[in-house]
Amino acid sequence: MTGPPDSSPHSSSPADRLSYEQAGVRYDSIDPLKVAAQRAAASTAHHLVALGFSEVVASRGESAYVVDVGPFCIASIVECLGSKALVADEMHDLTGKDYYAGIAQDTIAMAINDLITVGATPLIVQAYWAAGGSAWFDDAGRCAALVEGWKRACDICGVAWGGGETPALAGIVEAGRIDLAASCTGIVSPKRRLSLGDALGPGDAIVLLGSSGIHANGLSLARKLAERLPRGYLTPLASGTSYGEALLTPTLLYSQVTEALFAAGIVPHYCANITGHGWRKLLRHPAAQGYRIHTLPPVPEVLQFIQHQAGQDARAAYSTFNMGAGFALFVAADAAKRAVAVAQAQGVTAWLAGEVVTGAKRLFIEPLGIEFAADTLQLR
Amino acid sequence: MTGPPDSSPHSSSPADRLSYEQAGVRYDSIDPLKVAAQRAAASTAHHLVALGFSEVVASRGESAYVVDVGPFCIASIVECLGSKALVADEMHDLTGKDYYAGIAQDTIAMAINDLITVGATPLIVQAYWAAGGSAWFDDAGRCAALVEGWKRACDICGVAWGGGETPALAGIVEAGRIDLAASCTGIVSPKRRLSLGDALGPGDAIVLLGSSGIHANGLSLARKLAERLPRGYLTPLASGTSYGEALLTPTLLYSQVTEALFAAGIVPHYCANITGHGWRKLLRHPAAQGYRIHTLPPVPEVLQFIQHQAGQDARAAYSTFNMGAGFALFVAADAAKRAVAVAQAQGVTAWLAGEVVTGAKRLFIEPLGIEFAADTLQLR
Repeated sequence: MTGPPDSSPHSSSPADRLSYEQAGVRYDSIDPLKVAAQRAAASTAHHLVALGFSEVVASRGESAYVVDVGPFCIASIVECLGSKALVADEMHDLTGKDYYAGIAQDTIAMAINDLITVGATPLIVQAYWAAGGSAWFDDAGRCAALVEGWKRACDICGVAWGGGETPALAGIVEAGRIDLAASCTGIVSPKRRLSLGDALGPGDAIVLLGSSGIHANGLSLARKLAERLPRGYLTPLASGTSYGEALLTPTLLYSQVTEALFAAGIVPHYCANITGHGWRKLLRHPAAQGYRIHTLPPVPEVLQFIQHQAGQDARAAYSTFNMGAGFALFVAADAAKRAVAVAQAQGVTAWLAGEVVTGAKRLFIEPLGIEFAADTLQLR
Repeated sequence: MTGPPDSSPHSSSPADRLSYEQAGVRYDSIDPLKVAAQRAAASTAHHLVALGFSEVVASRGESAYVVDVGPFCIASIVECLGSKALVADEMHDLTGKDYYAGIAQDTIAMAINDLITVGATPLIVQAYWAAGGSAWFDDAGRCAALVEGWKRACDICGVAWGGGETPALAGIVEAGRIDLAASCTGIVSPKRRLSLGDALGPGDAIVLLGSSGIHANGLSLARKLAERLPRGYLTPLASGTSYGEALLTPTLLYSQVTEALFAAGIVPHYCANITGHGWRKLLRHPAAQGYRIHTLPPVPEVLQFIQHQAGQDARAAYSTFNMGAGFALFVAADAAKRAVAVAQAQGVTAWLAGEVVTGAKRLFIEPLGIEFAADTLQLR
C-alpha cells in the first residue's frame, strides 16, 4: 500500500475504459441461478429439525452457513480461487518462478475469510485441486509449492488440513490448468460469538483491515488489462515491482484478527469480507441503515495502477476492487479503537474508517463524494 | 442389475482391450502428490489441540476426516463428480433430454457416501458448480434441473443445503463444461457410532449394498469406449436402454441405510464406499487380515456391457468398477442378516456376501477365483 487513492479524473477516453463485463464476467446471467439455488437450499433446512438441530436463519445469504447443534454452532463453506492461477501460470512462463505457494494461500483465504465473518473459529480445511489432466501433477516443484503453501496457510490460521480431492479432469478443466477451491468447517463457540448482524445498528463503528493488494477478486479485469499493456505482466509499477508480481501477492488471512478480538473481549456486531463487488460488500447486511466512510485506507499500488490503466473512476474502482480494505469489522463504538489496536498487534493494518448511521440503506464514501445505493448489491 | 457377472474368457484380442491408463487416467503421477499432501495435512492436526479439540487419528487416510469436538465428532469432506457430466452433455446433444438432475444426485452421492463411511450423519451440503463461463448459466432448463436434482438428493439424505459457489471460470474450466463438486459436514453422535475399523476383525460379516449402475467412477473408460462404438452412446444394450442412458442412471445414496442401521442398534465396524479402484476399496482398512467374498451381487447390465466391450477379464473389471456393489458394510456376524434386512427395508438391495478372515491382507473373490493383494490398493 503505497499512497492515497487516485480519484482524480483520468485521461483515458471512454472507448479505452475496461469494465468488468468487458472482461467476460456477466453477473446478470449467473444471479437468477443463484436465486433459484438459494430458495431451494432454504427449503431443505427442516431436515436439521428432524435431527434435533436448527439452522441459524440469519446466516442464509451470508458468507457462511451456520447450524445450531446444541452446545455450539457449526459453520461451513466452499469457496473457489477464481482465475488468479492463470496469472501464476503466465508469470511462470515469463520468469521461471513458481507462484503456487502464494496461490494456495489465496485459495484458503477465500474460504477462511468468508467463514470468520459469522463469528466462527476455523477448524478444518479440505483441499479441492482439480487439474486438467494427470500431467499437471508431473511438475514436482509446482506440486511441492502448492502443498507447502497450503500447509503454511493452515498454520497461519491455526486450522487442521483434513484432506481433499485431487481429480484429473481432462475434458472439463483445460489442459495445463487447475481449478482450486477450499471447503472449510468451523465452530461458533460460545454462541454469543455469532456476528450475523443482530446487534448491528446506528452508532456502530466501521473498522477496515488492510489488504495486501488485489487479493483474489477482480482478476478477470486485471488479466484483460495485461493483454493491453505492451510489456504485459512484466510492466513495472512505480516501485519497480512488475505488474504480475504485484498481482500475485497472496491474499491476507484475517482469522488471527477475529480470534484475537474475541480473546480481547470484543465480539463484532457484523463482518464483511471485501471480495467480489468491492466496497459494495459493505452493504451486505439486509438492515435499512446507512454506512458512512470518513477515512480511506491507502490504495495498494497495484490497484492504483489498474484503476488508472483501466480508466476507472472512483465509483467503478471501489465497486470492483478492495481498494486497500480486505475486511470490514462493525463493532460497538466504544470498542473501535481497541479493535484497531488488536488488529495491528496481529500485524494487520487497521483503520477506524466510518460509522453506521440511520436512514436509507446506502454506502457513502465521503472523501470521494460517492454513494452506493442498496440496489447496487443484490446477493439475495 | 440384470444378471450374473460375466467372468468368462472374452473374444477381444489384447490389442482391443481398453485399460484405465489407456483412458487417460494415470494414478502413478497423482499419487506422489497425494502422499506429500497427506503428510503435510497430518502435520497440521496439532492446531486442534490448541483449540481444546483433537483429530480422530484413525480417520487420516479414510474417506472423511473426523475431529473430536467434545460432545460429538465433526466429519467433513469435499468430493468431485469427475467426468460423468461429459456424458450428460453428449447425451443432451444426441437426445435433447436434460440429465443434470441426475448429475446433481451423482455429485452429492460422491460426498455423502464417503462421509457416512466414518459413522457420520450428514448435516450440511455445500454446492461447488464451476462453469467454463457465464454462458453455461444461460440455459435455464439445465440450471433448473441442476437445482432441482440437488435439492431432491438433499431431501433423500435428510441434509440441509447450506449454499455454495457458482463461479464462471473461463480459461480454467472448458467452455460449455462444468466442474461439479460437493462438500459435506456431518456429525458422529454418539461417538460410539465411529466406524473407523477399531472393532473390525476376523469373523465379521461383509454386507454389500447394490449399485444402480456405473455410479460416477470409471467414466473415463466408459467414455473412451463410446468412441469405439459405431453408434456411440446410442448403442442399445440387451434391455433396449441405450448405453448413454444406462451410464447416466444416478448413483444411489446410502445415508438412509446407515441411519436406519443405527436406529436398529447396528453400528458397522467399518464401511467402504466402492468408487475408484472398484472392489480393491474393500482392502481400504490398514489391518492385516483377509476378506473372503463368497456371494456376488448381480452385475448391472451397463457394467457387463463395458466389461465385454473393453475386453476386460474379471480381475480388471472388479478392480475398476463397482460390479453391482456400491457400498460395503463390515458388521458383527450376528448382525449381518439384520443389516441386510434393514437395507432392504430402505429400498436398497443387500447381500451377505463374505467375511473377514485371519491371515495376510488380501481380498479373495471365491466365485471368480481372483485375489487382490494388499499392494493393489495404495491410498496412504
